[in-house]
This record gives sequence, C-alpha cells and structure tokens, in this order.
Amino acid sequence: MRYQSFDDPRGHFTPEIAHARMAGLRQWMGKARVDAVLVPRADEHQGEYVPACAERLAWLTGFTGSAGLAAVLAERAFLFVDGRYTAQAPTQIATDLFEVVQCPPTDPAAHLTEALGDGTVVGFDPLLHTLAQVERFEAKLKPRGIKLRALPKNPVDRVWGDARPAPPQAPVSIHPQKWAGETAEDKLAALRETLRQNQQDAVLLTLPDSIAWLFNIRGADVAHNPVALAFALVSRRGKAQLFIDSAKLTPEVRAHLKGAVRLRRPDALQTALADLKASGAIVRLDPDTAAYAFWRALGGKAHVARAADPCLLPKARKNDVEIAGMRASHRRDGAVMARFLAWLDGEAPSGTLSEIRVVEKLEALRQDTGQLREISFDTICGAGPHGAVVHYRVSAHTDRRIKAPTLLLIDSGAQYADGTTDITRTVAIGEPTPAQRRMFTLVLKGHIAIATARFPQGTRGVDLDPFARRALWSAGHDFDHGTGHGVGAFLSVHEGPQSISRRGMVPLEAGMIISNEPGYYEEGAYGIRIENLVLVAPLQVPDGGSRAMLSFETLTLAPIDRRLIDGDLLLPEERAWIDAYHARVREALMPDLDAATQRWLRSATAPL
Amino acid sequence: MRYQSFDDPRGHFTPEIAHARMAGLRQWMGKARVDAVLVPRADEHQGEYVPACAERLAWLTGFTGSAGLAAVLAERAFLFVDGRYTAQAPTQIATDLFEVVQCPPTDPAAHLTEALGDGTVVGFDPLLHTLAQVERFEAKLKPRGIKLRALPKNPVDRVWGDARPAPPQAPVSIHPQKWAGETAEDKLAALRETLRQNQQDAVLLTLPDSIAWLFNIRGADVAHNPVALAFALVSRRGKAQLFIDSAKLTPEVRAHLKGAVRLRRPDALQTALADLKASGAIVRLDPDTAAYAFWRALGGKAHVARAADPCLLPKARKNDVEIAGMRASHRRDGAVMARFLAWLDGEAPSGTLSEIRVVEKLEALRQDTGQLREISFDTICGAGPHGAVVHYRVSAHTDRRIKAPTLLLIDSGAQYADGTTDITRTVAIGEPTPAQRRMFTLVLKGHIAIATARFPQGTRGVDLDPFARRALWSAGHDFDHGTGHGVGAFLSVHEGPQSISRRGMVPLEAGMIISNEPGYYEEGAYGIRIENLVLVAPLQVPDGGSRAMLSFETLTLAPIDRRLIDGDLLLPEERAWIDAYHARVREALMPDLDAATQRWLRSATAPL
Repeated sequence: MRYQSFDDPRGHFTPEIAHARMAGLRQWMGKARVDAVLVPRADEHQGEYVPACAERLAWLTGFTGSAGLAAVLAERAFLFVDGRYTAQAPTQIATDLFEVVQCPPTDPAAHLTEALGDGTVVGFDPLLHTLAQVERFEAKLKPRGIKLRALPKNPVDRVWGDARPAPPQAPVSIHPQKWAGETAEDKLAALRETLRQNQQDAVLLTLPDSIAWLFNIRGADVAHNPVALAFALVSRRGKAQLFIDSAKLTPEVRAHLKGAVRLRRPDALQTALADLKASGAIVRLDPDTAAYAFWRALGGKAHVARAADPCLLPKARKNDVEIAGMRASHRRDGAVMARFLAWLDGEAPSGTLSEIRVVEKLEALRQDTGQLREISFDTICGAGPHGAVVHYRVSAHTDRRIKAPTLLLIDSGAQYADGTTDITRTVAIGEPTPAQRRMFTLVLKGHIAIATARFPQGTRGVDLDPFARRALWSAGHDFDHGTGHGVGAFLSVHEGPQSISRRGMVPLEAGMIISNEPGYYEEGAYGIRIENLVLVAPLQVPDGGSRAMLSFETLTLAPIDRRLIDGDLLLPEERAWIDAYHARVREALMPDLDAATQRWLRSATAPL
Repeated sequence: MRYQSFDDPRGHFTPEIAHARMAGLRQWMGKARVDAVLVPRADEHQGEYVPACAERLAWLTGFTGSAGLAAVLAERAFLFVDGRYTAQAPTQIATDLFEVVQCPPTDPAAHLTEALGDGTVVGFDPLLHTLAQVERFEAKLKPRGIKLRALPKNPVDRVWGDARPAPPQAPVSIHPQKWAGETAEDKLAALRETLRQNQQDAVLLTLPDSIAWLFNIRGADVAHNPVALAFALVSRRGKAQLFIDSAKLTPEVRAHLKGAVRLRRPDALQTALADLKASGAIVRLDPDTAAYAFWRALGGKAHVARAADPCLLPKARKNDVEIAGMRASHRRDGAVMARFLAWLDGEAPSGTLSEIRVVEKLEALRQDTGQLREISFDTICGAGPHGAVVHYRVSAHTDRRIKAPTLLLIDSGAQYADGTTDITRTVAIGEPTPAQRRMFTLVLKGHIAIATARFPQGTRGVDLDPFARRALWSAGHDFDHGTGHGVGAFLSVHEGPQSISRRGMVPLEAGMIISNEPGYYEEGAYGIRIENLVLVAPLQVPDGGSRAMLSFETLTLAPIDRRLIDGDLLLPEERAWIDAYHARVREALMPDLDAATQRWLRSATAPL
C-alpha cells in the first residue's frame, strides 16, 4: 500500500464542473431565501484531515488546502485562505467564480458585512463550525443587521447528492497496554475526577484523537492520523458512551471496550444530548473544537460549562511507556533516515532523481521496517525553489528533477504502533554556496539554542521561540512559522495544546513532545529547515541552582548535513553539541545498518 | 524641598485607631444592609500614585503598598495583596482585623464567594473600580447569588469624615513645545482621526498622564508623577473639554489651553456624560482603566465602544524632540550618577554610611543640577539582604548601616522637564565573593542580550524577555519580575502599553522607551539588578538581510561596577559591549565632571 499519491487531489475537476456545482448551490439558495452560504474546510470533528465525504470545499471550489472557507453569495463568492495558500488557491479554482481573499489580515466576517446588506441571511451548517467560530461571526454580523441561520441540512450535500462518498468505515484496532501505558479505565477515572473538581456532570468529546487516546483505540478513517471518527460522552457516573459506526468494530475491539464503554450508533448522539439537557446536567464543552450544533443541542449557556477538551493536557503529557515507544520508533526511523540519506548521496550525483522518486524511496524504506502503519503526513520534498514553499507537496504536475548544485529539503514522518515521527533534513546536492552554508548554520544555531535550552517550571513555548530566531534576527532574517508543534504518540503529528511559537501560551510540562524546526526560506531559490522532535524532561538542578528546571531531550536520530555547516560561525559549545549529537546518532543506529550504510554514517557523523 | 521621606508612611497609626475605624465602617455597613465592602488602593484615575485624600486603604488598614484590595465583612476582613507585599503587609496592619491573602494565586472574587452566602450584598464605590474589574467580580459573584451594589458615596469617606484631606490643587504648568515636540492641537487632530476611523463620536479620558500628554501640561497632584488629576472628553467636533479644578490653573496656563480646550469644573463631568448619552453618541471608553461609574453614566453597552485609551500608543512612541530630551536628561543624570558612585566609593569604606544617607546624597546631587522637578519614584536602596527585597523602601525603622563586605543595590530616577530617568546599579562595598561576581555576571549577560537584541518589526516584549533570562536559566536561576517597563517623557516612570515581560503582547515600535533590568535575588543575603533605559530604534538592515528590523539604543549612561564582573564568563562580544558602553559613558560624561570625578570615572570605565 502506498500512503502518498501524486495525482491531482481535485480528481476530475474542470471549470465547467465548477460552474455547474455553483449553479446548483445558488439555485437552492434562491429557493431557501438564503443570501449567502458558508462552506468551511471542516468536518464534525475539526481535524486537520477530513474524509472524502467531508471534502465539500474542494468539491465546490477545487481548492485542496488544509484550511479555508468559502462564502457563496448570489452574485459573488469568496474563498478565504491564509498566507500559506494565497499562491496555490488561484491555480486550483475557477477564478471567475471565486475571489481569493487572504486572512489574516482580512477577517472573513468583516469582509462579508461589507458585501451583504442589512436584513440578509447567512446560512451555515452548525455541525461544521465551532461554537467560538459562530460567536465570532455573530459578533460581526449581528450589529449590521445580518442574520446567521443554522441550516438543517448541509447545502453542499443537497447538490452533491448521491455522488457524495459514504462516510469511512475503516476498522478500529486496539492500542494495547504495552504501548498505551495506561488503561482506558484509569484514564476515565482521572477524567471523571477532573469533572468532579470542576463541578461538571459530563463532558462531550468531539476530537477523534482525544477519543482514540482515552479509549486506547486507533483507526484509519482519515489520512495520516490513526483515528476513528466518533463522538463520546463521559458522565461522572455510569459507563462512558461511544458513538461510532458499528461496522468499524470487530468482536475483539468490542470485547476490549465492553467493560467501561457503552457502544451507541452515531445518530443516537442527538437523543443523548437532549436527554442530558432535560436532566439539568452541566456538560463540559470545548468552544474552540466542538461544533455549534452540540452547544444548541445541550441547551446553551445554562447547561454548558465552556472549557478545553479535558483530554488535551493528559494526552500531551506522555507516560513512561509512551516515551519508551517514542524512543524506539525514533531509533527505527533514524535507521530508515540513514539508509535514505546514504542512498540519496549515492544517487543524486547522477542527476536523474526527481522529487517524486525521492518521496517514493523514503516511503519504501519505511515500509521495509515491516512496522509502518501510515506516514504521519504527506512528505514535503522540495528541490531548489520548491524548498522555499513551506507547505510544498510534490505532484505529477510540479515534480522537479534534482540537479546539482541545489539544496533538497525533505520533511517527513512515520506512524508506527509505538510512536509517531516527524523529521526534516536539508541536504546539499553538489557543492553548496557560502551563502547557503551561512544560512544553514544560522538556522542550526537556532535549532541548537532550543535543543540546549534549560528553563524553569511554568515556562511557555512563547518564551522559548525567540531562541530559535536570535541568530537569524541578528543577520536581518526570520522565518514565518512557529518553531515547534506538539506531536502525539501514534496519534496526530500536530497535537496541542503546547507549541513553541508566538502563540504558545501553555506551560511546557515533563512528558510533552514538541518539534524543534527553525528554517530559512529564500523565495525562488531554496529552503532550509532542520527538524528534530524533543521531549520535555525534568532537569537535575544545576550546582547551586535555586529553581526546579526543565530541559529537552532530542528524540530524533539522524545526521545533520555536515557539508552545510560553517564551523567558523559556531560557538565552541555549539560545535560540541553537534559532535555529541552525531556520536549519539552513530551509536544508536549502527547496530541496525548494513556495512555500506555504516560506512556512510561514520563519515556523516564524524566530528566537525 | 525633599522628595523622599523616611517617616512611617502610615503617619500616626495604632491598633486602637485601626479598630475604631473598622468599627465605624461596620456600623455603617449594618445600617446600610451591606454584607461586605470593597476598599481598593485606587482613586478615580487608577494611577500608581494616589493623593492623600484617596489613601483609603492605608487609612483603614495601615497597609501602604502600591496595590491591594481590602474586603470588609461583618465578622471577618481580608487584605488581598500580590507577592511583593505578603511580607510587608502583616507588619503594617492590625493582624487581628485582617487576614492577608496573596493573589495570585488566590482570586479575590472567588475567595469572597466562599466567605459570603447566597443573597448577600457587596458594596463598592463605582468610581474606584474599572469596568473590567467590576465585570470580573460580577462573573464570579452572580452565579453564587451574591449582588454587587454600586454605592452612592464612598463608605470609607463616611467614616473618615472631616479629617479626610482635601483633594490636591497643585499648580498646572505648560509642557512647552521645545520638549513636547508636538502641539496639543496636532495631537487632538490625530486623536479625532482615530475616532473617525473607528466610528466613535467621542472619547472619555481618565488617565492623568494621557491628559498631560495630550494637552501638553504637567502637574504635581500626586507623588513622583508630574500630572494633574483631571478628566477629559474629546469629541470629533467642537472643543475638547477638560474637567479640572480651576484653582490649579494660572492665567498663563489658561491662555495656553484656550484655543483648543473648554475648561470645566470636575463636577460638570456627570452632566456632560448624561448629555452624551442623551445625544445617542458612541463614546470610546477603556474598560481596563476607566471607572465603572462612567460606563454606567454613559448608558453602558449600547452607547460605549470598548477600546484602549487612544493616547497610550502615540504617547509611548516618542517623537524626535522627546527623544532628544530623553537623551539630554540621561546625560545629565549620568553625570549625577558618576558623582554619586564616586562619592560612594570614597565614603563607603568608613562603614558609617546608612541606606538613608545614601538616598539623601543621591537626591541632593540630583537637586544640584538645578533642574530636578521630582524624583521619578522613591529610591530603592538596599544593602545586603535588603537588596533581595525587590520593592524595598528604606524607612527610619528599617535603615541599615552599610558595612563591607556587602552589595548595595540602588534603583532611582529623576523627573527633569526634558525627560524621566530610571537607573539601577549594584555596587560592591568591599571585596565581593566569587559567587556574587558569578551571579552579577550572569545578570549582566542577560542585560547585554537585551541591549544587543535585533528583532523584526512586529516583535513583542514577550519575545525578548527570555533573552534576559537564558544565562540565569542555564545556571538554574531566574528572577520574579518583568525585564522591562515603558517609561514616559517627563511623565510616569511606569508607562504602558509596551513591556518586556511574560505579558508583553504589544509589538515594540520605534520611539518606545523601555527599561532593561534583569536581576537576581538571594533571599536573606543580597540582591543584584542592572538597569538601563533603552530606546527602540530602526536598524539598518544588515548586509544581505531580508527583513525590516529594530534594535535598542541604550539611553542610560553610568558605569556598571567592573569589580563585580567575572570576565571569564563573558563571550568576546559581551566583553566588547561592556568596553564600548563604558567608553561611551566616559566620553559623554567627562565634560560635566570635576577633576576628581573624572579620575574616578576613567578608572571605573577602563576596559575589562
């Protein structure tokens, strides 16, 4: 099985098709007396990936980015995308149908108030927007006399009709205790204690990775994230209720869940919420991730306690078993990377490699471990100028021959049953320029500054992010993405609540796993990124120290291209870090490698 | 005139007096059927300093810290203070009357809900609490069935009676164009443009330093901040209205204001707000600084646009004339500091100096310039363990002999007509220990990391704060205050909205002035702080750089004690910074110094 495809993700999509779909939607709008319709890139679970049946935005517009919102009016239509997609969107859509609007800086709701008049009606599917999103829209639209109307049925689905794919029914598997480290029963008990302390009677869980973590199950309903689409209700008393399509459940999984969980059909959720409302219970709901429809079904303000999904923090704090699994999966993946980088060094000089060939080879090497369950996201493999496109995905259409001299940026990851990996290496193909070596070294200094940071309890990601940038800032440069995101344990490769970024307001805690990935992008020329995953770990208080401190342990094990390092720009302790890291990589990976790769690794990890 | 006193700030205050005052207040509470009364340390302007007539918290409790809140119930009473004051408060108050509660972590409103029952009433003076404060209280109290009642007259004033001092009537002076750099007319025009862009009809200004800045006036109604207590209403059309006691205004000041301003009595404000409400105008009000009473007087939600005081940002961005004034005042103050530090080095070995003597000498040297208008805050002068008390103020009661070997921390500042200064130096009296030199050098590394920071446009204070801490963190230490606060130009020494701290979410802009003051405090032993003021300035983009960058220019000019620097712990560029800074200090100050001080300065600023 191949996990990455290079076909046009829009499938068969032409301007004629786009026009016909829009005409169908507008016809319905006219009949329903709705002046505008919102079409978000989201399903009922607000995940990064959605199943084919929820790709409504792509179906309607042709745009396949991971975030976006269309607003269709009678005579105009907008496609709101963020800065990552302002270049991509116009190449995918019928530009005579949609005006592409970048947001931020533009606010979609504010933009709509200017296009719509007093007394107009904006329709939306209340299952596809979070409570917080709807409230933000309402705050902008209401003062201008514009009504938001929750639609009883999704308007795109009305037009899509029978051609719309069925919801996924991928089989659920058990995430066994040897990798989970904590039983579902124990997690449920802790969750109930949290509810008790907060005087909440129940919680509605809508995030599939929270549910996968809580019940120690995994699935395959969406790409790359090993989750099953489902909802769950956990009350302080009685069995937890899991709302899931029974077609996904084998007898073995049913048996695993039986003790603590009552299995229910997805369409029983509405009744369960109505029952809760009638009972007068206070139900915890995460306004930033739960759909507006659930807020309404629960009865709103009087019945709902607004608070973050209570699984987020315990899921982020990996236990010892999960940490051991993450270490093992990173050793395995490091050996893959060594084989891959050795292969690349051998093959690239021929000038015959292409980006797609590189991606296929890397996936094949991960398959060869016999333990690959998925890749953790579509590999980013950008040669030369493609490396400067932060979210580049190679397709048959964009594939580029890799010819020396150039830089090749490869950002990839694996899902193994014991852990999730995410690694970026930038490799010199042929002789790098002095400017490229200088920029690589400045990025490396930022990477080392994070890897070696020591910080007191209570430090947040926002407090570490600047360390990744200082060397670049001093040279008049920066990069326009966060330094690091949380990573799950055989779960989502992008996981909250912690991050190392301008917005990282959550204190880092021991057991959290985060990426460390500063970069530099020279548009039209090349991109550089160096990414390892790090584990937050307690630090033994230094001699004479007065505070409880934390530090990072780097989990990722793969050489960083020495040919791109200008040692003259490094401080002695930075050189020492690189040499020590490479010694660790060598020692950890050697036993798993063939003789040729060992030879390559010895040279690739030699002291500077 | 002496600006700093060392008497007990409580005046004549005994347990008997405290009991009598509480009894008076509780008697009124019984009659008025109020179950609790809030007594904040605040006046109608929410400034850091309040006039004697507004020292209600000190009058009632004896506590004289700069922030605090008392809540008096029928049988119990609480004094809520932050971490700075948990040691001081119990020494000042009648501890049988008040329970001292530290907040954070405790939330006063949550604490009150536990002490009060359903159906009880909490009275407060709506002129002394901001809109945001009242809303936060309401959100906690209302769900528990506790009512907040705005009292028509301040309950403390009822008991205080005729003994309560009269409001201050210090004369207002003109802040002339040669120091202001922009006329009040031009500032008003820009303010009106802001109102127009935000579709607001008027703004109510309640912060005295905003009013002083906007109208180019200064006053002396409170200690250390050269402001006049007043309110102002600025509408998009017509003259601005300044509500101020006419006794403060000379004919000259009236003439200065006449063109743009209509002068009105303070008690006309209520009528003016009622008129605005009746007119249907939308009035801008800062929920974080304006009193709840004004929100009510304006008619609340339907009539008020909640937004930050629109003077905050333009006031923070100093113009070229203000910057020139700040530079001149720092040269003048630097010469004072050189004379002071030279004197200290000469006198300290005798062992006869005391903290008070040091404070008096420093103020006298500032007086000798002939240009001192005020000190910018009470000097913090802490010898040995007193240096570890971050907000230590010496009094006759705590005064300490300065005996070698010790460290002396002196944090002080001046108000000159052309600028405000704020400087901290830590001085070795006798031979410092190796541990003290190491800690001083780690603090210095943080100070240099801020002073030399280069950062892209959009960088916030929170993004720079960690640089001040990294060296300390690496050694297992930290300091429990922000790295820097905004500073006014002949205005408040603590000025928002920018700061370098965990909470510094405002992007730094060219022209802003901030303190750079990392520290280290070893409880019971000594304190270290190194503070200079820095100016945010555009940075010429470094060769090959790709971003618009900013950097800091250090304004403060005074030697940093070389005897406390362990040069072995510094990087070459850190040594270079110190040497270059000292060379600059020497060059700038030499011309203003006598021969003996010149000799001292030459040695104090010699290269490491």
